[in-house]
Amino acid sequence: VVQDFASRFAEARSHWGPLSVGLDPSGSLLEDWELGDTPDGLDRFADIVLEATVGAVGLVKPQSAFYERHGWRGLRTLQRLITGARQYGLLVIVDAKRGDIGNTNTAYAEAFLGHDAPFGADALTVHPYLGVDALEPFVALAYNSASCLFIVTRSTNPDGRLIQSARTSSGATVEERLLLEIGSLNSKFAPDRIGPVGAVVGPNITDSLLDLTAAHALFLAPGIGSQGATPADVARAFAACPDRVIPSASRSILSAGPDKQALRGAIQALADELTSKLAT
Amino acid sequence: VVQDFASRFAEARSHWGPLSVGLDPSGSLLEDWELGDTPDGLDRFADIVLEATVGAVGLVKPQSAFYERHGWRGLRTLQRLITGARQYGLLVIVDAKRGDIGNTNTAYAEAFLGHDAPFGADALTVHPYLGVDALEPFVALAYNSASCLFIVTRSTNPDGRLIQSARTSSGATVEERLLLEIGSLNSKFAPDRIGPVGAVVGPNITDSLLDLTAAHALFLAPGIGSQGATPADVARAFAACPDRVIPSASRSILSAGPDKQALRGAIQALADELTSKLAT
Repeated sequence: VVQDFASRFAEARSHWGPLSVGLDPSGSLLEDWELGDTPDGLDRFADIVLEATVGAVGLVKPQSAFYERHGWRGLRTLQRLITGARQYGLLVIVDAKRGDIGNTNTAYAEAFLGHDAPFGADALTVHPYLGVDALEPFVALAYNSASCLFIVTRSTNPDGRLIQSARTSSGATVEERLLLEIGSLNSKFAPDRIGPVGAVVGPNITDSLLDLTAAHALFLAPGIGSQGATPADVARAFAACPDRVIPSASRSILSAGPDKQALRGAIQALADELTSKLAT
Repeated sequence: VVQDFASRFAEARSHWGPLSVGLDPSGSLLEDWELGDTPDGLDRFADIVLEATVGAVGLVKPQSAFYERHGWRGLRTLQRLITGARQYGLLVIVDAKRGDIGNTNTAYAEAFLGHDAPFGADALTVHPYLGVDALEPFVALAYNSASCLFIVTRSTNPDGRLIQSARTSSGATVEERLLLEIGSLNSKFAPDRIGPVGAVVGPNITDSLLDLTAAHALFLAPGIGSQGATPADVARAFAACPDRVIPSASRSILSAGPDKQALRGAIQALADELTSKLAT
């Protein structure tokens, strides 16, 4: 029997802290690392980050876009990276922000969640624009495969406010309403514990804090470092549930590479700071 | 000099009508066609639909999810299908609904738009949840490569109404506001003509019609047939600009396969009906 994602995260957190390392091999990073902005260079990137993260952190978060831009070869690398990381015990969150309706969502879920999925990860990010109810195939497969779905709720960029703070018919904002719907799903699937549906919540929007605890959810907090949020910002935004947040940092860590010891040092330093700031 | 997408669509429309054929090889379709729900079966599907669509229709719209669920091999098929279809003069809209922020969007744009893109298509669908301004890398590359971006604005499913009809701070609904922003972008990039930023607008939401003409845009209208909208619904929803709409049908056409003549017959029948209903 596989433990649910929330339990696996709690275990990883107790060993390595809550940090997730974003594996975002942009073209300029591949050049900076002198690997070449090619499918072969991407393959070498995958080898390096696997070695640097295993035993240093509990979670990694590859961003699909940086693999897709190398075509099917890049996606072969992504598949290999996901499989390799999971074999070594890392939890893998694929940041792909998929989202559609009906059997298209079933197809996406089959691509990314569960034992038989080619890109089978521990968690996946999805878009809510077509409605949370439309995400049902993802939710069902996440639940059945003990994985997790992170619904993009509040983004780190100011341009996101327009839609995310719009008012739904009930008077709640879009992001408030999403958290309510996430709470309902989790109460249904996992009463009295953290459920399979999480939310992506940017930690840097400080003018309106969200009511997070009622969602019974894990939170993915992207953009630590390069996008401006500090560990202290994360602690403030998630003060109500510091043990439920997964802060993710990419560029601020990867810029220490390609030297593996330097990467492990950068990971360790940020993980320690987050562990201390998010102590419960 | 390559003509812009709107001109290429107008030319395709004059030959074959406005129909786009959705290439959505679900697992059950591959089984129904007795190809096998495998990467090899998907490859055979691609061969069949290429032969059936070339010379019968002007546009095809592969849905990425159905290729992704076969892993990197499925994406190799998608790459081959896109390249093959374009070589034969079909316009290819990749329905991938990507969307993120910053250099992640640059990476997605590099995957799907322009000469050097591995999945280089004539058009791509994207999600607006993180803001239209965040889509700037897509818009710039679509403009520079004479391709088109379709921003998901109004979906065909009732679950989509919650967010899409929420009120932004200006009082406009989210979907109204998106059309305004699309209109601004098109006025900037292509004054006095149809611009590079289009909108996905479900033709079956009849309780509130949108003001479409001010967007100076093309519209992708999904879900003709299986999702319940008829050519008459399309004509009604796009009465203000019948020559700017690209109706897309998938299951209702593919269910005529795998026989190529039967597929061509189904395409022809629906294309004729749409041409007649959307005559200007």
